[in-house]
Amino acid sequence: MNYCSHCGNPVTHRIPEGDNRHRYVCDHCNSIHYENPRIVAGTVPVWNGQVLLCRRAIEPRHGYWTLPAGFMENTETTVEAAIRETREEALAEVEVDGLYTMLHVPHIDQVHMFFRARLKDGTFGVGEESLDAQLFPLADIPWQELAFPTIRETLERFVRDTETGEFPLHIGDIRYRMGK
Amino acid sequence: MNYCSHCGNPVTHRIPEGDNRHRYVCDHCNSIHYENPRIVAGTVPVWNGQVLLCRRAIEPRHGYWTLPAGFMENTETTVEAAIRETREEALAEVEVDGLYTMLHVPHIDQVHMFFRARLKDGTFGVGEESLDAQLFPLADIPWQELAFPTIRETLERFVRDTETGEFPLHIGDIRYRMGK
Repeated sequence: MNYCSHCGNPVTHRIPEGDNRHRYVCDHCNSIHYENPRIVAGTVPVWNGQVLLCRRAIEPRHGYWTLPAGFMENTETTVEAAIRETREEALAEVEVDGLYTMLHVPHIDQVHMFFRARLKDGTFGVGEESLDAQLFPLADIPWQELAFPTIRETLERFVRDTETGEFPLHIGDIRYRMGK
Repeated sequence: MNYCSHCGNPVTHRIPEGDNRHRYVCDHCNSIHYENPRIVAGTVPVWNGQVLLCRRAIEPRHGYWTLPAGFMENTETTVEAAIRETREEALAEVEVDGLYTMLHVPHIDQVHMFFRARLKDGTFGVGEESLDAQLFPLADIPWQELAFPTIRETLERFVRDTETGEFPLHIGDIRYRMGK
């Protein structure tokens, strides 16, 4: 951030009076430009015991497999965002069951939320931001080609929990990036 | 938003190519300025069966009672944000038990999350953004003087669930504002 989005004058990066964090501040119109973490919402879409993954057609991690997920937009709920992203990336309609993982990724200022979901009728396709979409039996998940740590963590838990049939909410922190 | 925070030129509000939502777009440097919902994180702090509330010293809802909560900051987790807000507003240290309510407030682009928590040693005080802080027996919660719908919804559930001793996660949507 270089300029004030309100008045167009240059901003400075300093701790405002009465605050204890650095902010982008405009000394012309006195605007303080707060920045906050963003939510990424997605689903674990299941059909006949298989999980639907998408291969990314965009950076970062072009060509790697992901659960359908993306940035939550203004005016929607996390559930609506997860359903919309599943529709956009995998052309699939889902029924959402419940929040399954909430994973903080503090080094990139994100919170990733995945909901368990069931495909409504088993149909899916390849959305604009995907190269491919495919149902994987749990024994065949492409562990070496997953896009992000939150995808790996969510799928690892899902495989383990499928054995017991209990899917408790997991809240955790991710503090690493994927290797090449 | 009137000006591009990257280059300082005026922005336009339109649907960028390949997108389906209105964004603030800079036609000079081609920046697209996305806006996303913010997370408000807080706690339901309990001590000896009583819940700790704060009376707000700031707008909106100056003078009304709230659970300690506030905007999650970059580089922290939701749990860290909830603990920090409880420290700042009620000068209280808490142990967090688990996520209790996640309430979408889509008309103001917020997601409110409240964690159940226990005061570590029963001490608390009045933070800079509070006029007062007080432990309330559940029978004496000031229902007519609560600050926000998400506070009311969380406390109503907490009172009901205390009767059964079960505190399942509740995910819901809030689509109204408090009356005067």
